[in-house]
Amino acid sequence: MAWLLLKNPLLVSFSSLMTTYSNTRVKLASRPVGVPQPENFAFDTVEIPPLAPGQVLVKTSFISMDPAMRGWMNGSKSYMAPLALGEVFRALGAGQIVESRHPAFAVGDYITGDLKAQQFVLRDGQAALDVTNPATYLLKVDPTLASLETHLSTLGMPGLTAYFGLLHTGQPQAGETVVVSGAAGAVGSVVGQIAKLKGCRVVGLVGSQEKIDYCLHDLGFDACLDYKDPYVRAALRTACPQGIDVYFDNVGGDLLDYALERLRLRARVVLCGAISQYNNTTPIKGPTNYLSLLVNRARMEGIVVLDNVAHFPEATREMAGWLRQGQLHTPKTQVEQGLHNFLPALLKLFSGENFGKLLLAP
Amino acid sequence: MAWLLLKNPLLVSFSSLMTTYSNTRVKLASRPVGVPQPENFAFDTVEIPPLAPGQVLVKTSFISMDPAMRGWMNGSKSYMAPLALGEVFRALGAGQIVESRHPAFAVGDYITGDLKAQQFVLRDGQAALDVTNPATYLLKVDPTLASLETHLSTLGMPGLTAYFGLLHTGQPQAGETVVVSGAAGAVGSVVGQIAKLKGCRVVGLVGSQEKIDYCLHDLGFDACLDYKDPYVRAALRTACPQGIDVYFDNVGGDLLDYALERLRLRARVVLCGAISQYNNTTPIKGPTNYLSLLVNRARMEGIVVLDNVAHFPEATREMAGWLRQGQLHTPKTQVEQGLHNFLPALLKLFSGENFGKLLLAP
Repeated sequence: MAWLLLKNPLLVSFSSLMTTYSNTRVKLASRPVGVPQPENFAFDTVEIPPLAPGQVLVKTSFISMDPAMRGWMNGSKSYMAPLALGEVFRALGAGQIVESRHPAFAVGDYITGDLKAQQFVLRDGQAALDVTNPATYLLKVDPTLASLETHLSTLGMPGLTAYFGLLHTGQPQAGETVVVSGAAGAVGSVVGQIAKLKGCRVVGLVGSQEKIDYCLHDLGFDACLDYKDPYVRAALRTACPQGIDVYFDNVGGDLLDYALERLRLRARVVLCGAISQYNNTTPIKGPTNYLSLLVNRARMEGIVVLDNVAHFPEATREMAGWLRQGQLHTPKTQVEQGLHNFLPALLKLFSGENFGKLLLAP
Repeated sequence: MAWLLLKNPLLVSFSSLMTTYSNTRVKLASRPVGVPQPENFAFDTVEIPPLAPGQVLVKTSFISMDPAMRGWMNGSKSYMAPLALGEVFRALGAGQIVESRHPAFAVGDYITGDLKAQQFVLRDGQAALDVTNPATYLLKVDPTLASLETHLSTLGMPGLTAYFGLLHTGQPQAGETVVVSGAAGAVGSVVGQIAKLKGCRVVGLVGSQEKIDYCLHDLGFDACLDYKDPYVRAALRTACPQGIDVYFDNVGGDLLDYALERLRLRARVVLCGAISQYNNTTPIKGPTNYLSLLVNRARMEGIVVLDNVAHFPEATREMAGWLRQGQLHTPKTQVEQGLHNFLPALLKLFSGENFGKLLLAP
């Protein structure tokens, strides 16, 4: 910072009080075809300059590893702009204010937001107050309400996705049958539990016996099936003797077809994701049984959680209440260590290896 | 009828007053795989017995040839039970009462209903009054309001399908872009015209230059494309510069994928049929681009017109008004002659050879 000391004597005393921070970041180096490879990622380390007036500095505690990251690596249009080549990865995260020159943020405050895949975030405090801009907004969270990890799972995007996707779009009624794929995951586990709270029969689809046990015994699902079972199609029929009223889909592929086949009259299919298809190099497998929507006057509808941002506070409040009363269990959380593990962590989302919410401590 | 004369002398004088009718019928002989063949159909001719008290006899003027007939030939579950082997084909039709022993029906009354693929219909008059049973209900129609043919098209099931599918499920708003496949057909032509009445930009997809001319010049569509054009995908993009708000699909297949690709935020895809797929021997082509529903928070929803039976009278009244004021043109009608042409007529629906509403005069 020698040039700063020379050029601006007013900063000398101020900057001499500051710790200096070096910030390692993960950038998109090239666009993957199929499964992402190491050469698609670049790392750099930059020094954080002293804070200008109005700025805040966040130290990232956890980066949320999300399937959507794979989509942002493509150059194509989605519900968010794709990442530009050379851009630091977009990533939800949780952290703590370590320096502040904005009155709305104090050192020690806990926040969540789009912190990007890096160790520190230097941000304009005014932009951090703008709730309409998810790229810059920082939400102060209450660490006494739930752990910082939980603010990235049940009380964060995955939980809110489950809440709005199931309740607003799926509209489950007591006595109905709700099937959810990716049921042990950060979204699916909350979907199933909220459906149980609403008096539904809940059937999960997961990828291992350990996850089946978790859904049945820890989360109280009525049935849970292994999608790798060659007889899963028949097993789904047995598990849903009345058919399916709501199918909450995180996975796509064959499971979506099996669910469509079992829809009841006026069923709702909530499209939240299609993780089985994100690394495809061939065209996506469309649902062969889509005409079941016609036969059953059913609908299939896509959801994006950010559309509900105005209703986040009341949803968070309701879910925090369920957590406090023990009606909702926060998903399992797995924390990988170190930014250099960004790619291995990302791949765990697609191999089915991770269990619950996957975080990376940078 | 010798045994009747012997066993019931009271009937002698009555039956001696009656004309005797021989009734030729079309039955399902076997289930087709792929395109229906002559051996899938059987014909028989039976004599109509004298009317019992309460019965009515209808002479069928027109049988409505509908794509749904192909589905009923399969043994699988749909929104209606499949036809049993040996059963007379289910078919909407229009006709006239030629004999009546029920006070609610007079000789000369015009009716529509499920008359089945036959020349005469003997029906219990009480069952014919039961609006909740589409298999037996006979609707009296006003021949001064519109021709009998129009009561099977714009004021019948195709028109009502267009009306409810577009207005209730598609929910088009003025200024939006509505795309309809099978646009010169009995359903599609009404969809497009109602969308124009509601102030939308309307783009049709059809199978010939003659149909393009009809949609553009007779029906007033804003654009109309030939789905056989190898560049139809690019042409659809050009015809919908703002994207698609409502896609009313009668066809399925590649066109559905092209439409999904162009959806706008919160678009509605109305699934009315998938005529391109009904004769498939391989699995149906599912929509590869279904994740466009997610990206655009759009929905795809199936419709079955019979769900709206309680609202048929007001819908018919509104459409009759549009017809009278010249705001709605009744679709072209093509009438094939003779029950023996049942199969050739049915196949015309799938070859794209028919134009507008296809009827068969038995």
